[in-house]
Amino acid sequence: MRTYLECIPCFFKQGLLAARIAGLAPDEQRKVLIEIAGILPDIPMEASPPEIALHVYKAIRKSSGVQDPFKRIKDKYISLALSLYPELKKIVDNSEDPLLSAIRVAIAGNIIDFGVGSEFDVEETLKETMVAQFAVLDYELFKEALVKAKTILYIGDNAGETVFDRVLIEQMEGDVIFAVREEPVINDALIEDAERSGIGEVARIISSGSDAPGTILTRCNREFLTLFQNADLVIAKGQGNYETLSEVSREIYFLIKAKCPVIARDIGVKEQSIVLMRLKREDNP
Amino acid sequence: MRTYLECIPCFFKQGLLAARIAGLAPDEQRKVLIEIAGILPDIPMEASPPEIALHVYKAIRKSSGVQDPFKRIKDKYISLALSLYPELKKIVDNSEDPLLSAIRVAIAGNIIDFGVGSEFDVEETLKETMVAQFAVLDYELFKEALVKAKTILYIGDNAGETVFDRVLIEQMEGDVIFAVREEPVINDALIEDAERSGIGEVARIISSGSDAPGTILTRCNREFLTLFQNADLVIAKGQGNYETLSEVSREIYFLIKAKCPVIARDIGVKEQSIVLMRLKREDNP
Repeated sequence: MRTYLECIPCFFKQGLLAARIAGLAPDEQRKVLIEIAGILPDIPMEASPPEIALHVYKAIRKSSGVQDPFKRIKDKYISLALSLYPELKKIVDNSEDPLLSAIRVAIAGNIIDFGVGSEFDVEETLKETMVAQFAVLDYELFKEALVKAKTILYIGDNAGETVFDRVLIEQMEGDVIFAVREEPVINDALIEDAERSGIGEVARIISSGSDAPGTILTRCNREFLTLFQNADLVIAKGQGNYETLSEVSREIYFLIKAKCPVIARDIGVKEQSIVLMRLKREDNP
Repeated sequence: MRTYLECIPCFFKQGLLAARIAGLAPDEQRKVLIEIAGILPDIPMEASPPEIALHVYKAIRKSSGVQDPFKRIKDKYISLALSLYPELKKIVDNSEDPLLSAIRVAIAGNIIDFGVGSEFDVEETLKETMVAQFAVLDYELFKEALVKAKTILYIGDNAGETVFDRVLIEQMEGDVIFAVREEPVINDALIEDAERSGIGEVARIISSGSDAPGTILTRCNREFLTLFQNADLVIAKGQGNYETLSEVSREIYFLIKAKCPVIARDIGVKEQSIVLMRLKREDNP
């Protein structure tokens, strides 16, 4: 997905939120905003928003000297999600269609996203998501692909959400490789976050190599790229992965809660929709 | 009220909305955003937000060559409000306290504000506002001041809202002077908008001289300033007037629907609150 003009005010909003979470003083927060303004004339609108956001978060890391400003927030949401885990398992085990319920659980976890800038309530979102209507639901295709798949690449998104992903992975028969970001960016999961979420018990955890809040293939490592090409099934979680992978030519199943109005419009659904969508853009490079 | 850091992303959001309403092509819209970025390093945070917004809207007028981009929107909402006028009168006439009902009507009209960037529903807001609890209600003080006042300066805000103001002015005994902006800015009312709203039948309409979406005294004309000093009662409508007049030393009654979270926090109320508030900052210049 390309960067839309509406993303520009949002870069400033995200930058301010992150600068505050990083503990910068008001004058330093202002400097971060001025730094974002400085890169604005050079923003290539054909790049995806996470390619721009990458520079915003780097500016904050540099100004604050804090390598991982969202560390405490990530820990908090992993703990919250782990405390919910028994309930999530019960919901799935008691449902008529455990796979579909686990998909709903995984999408509900996608609400734990500090890149959007609005407040959220994890437990309320879980309740809603278990009964919400899907705006896109390529479920039959997904089931078929899942049954056949020996190797599944699952590209994670946020820390804490990872516990919800684990519930879905537990419904899978194939070998699952769970990919996370290489460097801290917003509250996106790193290897340690995936491990603390118990993903290590159900999947092999790798870094994609990405330092952006998404999966920019040109910034990914060789191990990830090989898996991305060769896995029988690729699942990508959340908005950042959609923004960076929606135009890639291989088949991908996206699991998203469309919290951002621009992304919702790009997908073609209403804001706050839940989506399980197969994409394969044959025409794109 | 000073400019808060949260106002900065909002300047970009407002600029983009206005550029689109002015009919600029995407590339021109982007240039407006880059222009706003260019003034960012020089923004004096102690200035009020309308002092900054002024430059944003000037940039759009310059780029588009359109003197009054919101003209059609203003006309539309004046027509809508005029069609509601008989109903507004009926609400006030049938109420137990016509003055208080007319105040509620005038505040409801303040929803017609294109400087906030969120969608609104005039009729729904009217219904809600007629029964909403005031977050601040200096009603006894206001009534007392109103009874005594021979000359009342009523500083208007948006076009269309002006019809709702007329309903309140019709409850007043003193001589009312209704002040509007000098130059087009967002959907703020100009002299012709006040006239089309029927304000001329109940008040004398003047320009404040302001070219900002608020009342910056240093940019106002002599006639307005004399009235501002000498009127027995000054009423200021809406957020822009609050932002620019909240720290002025003379007594002012503010009628506001606090749609912006930053302004709501500055007032000390919750977002979407309705407010009739007397302010007189003795310590300020």
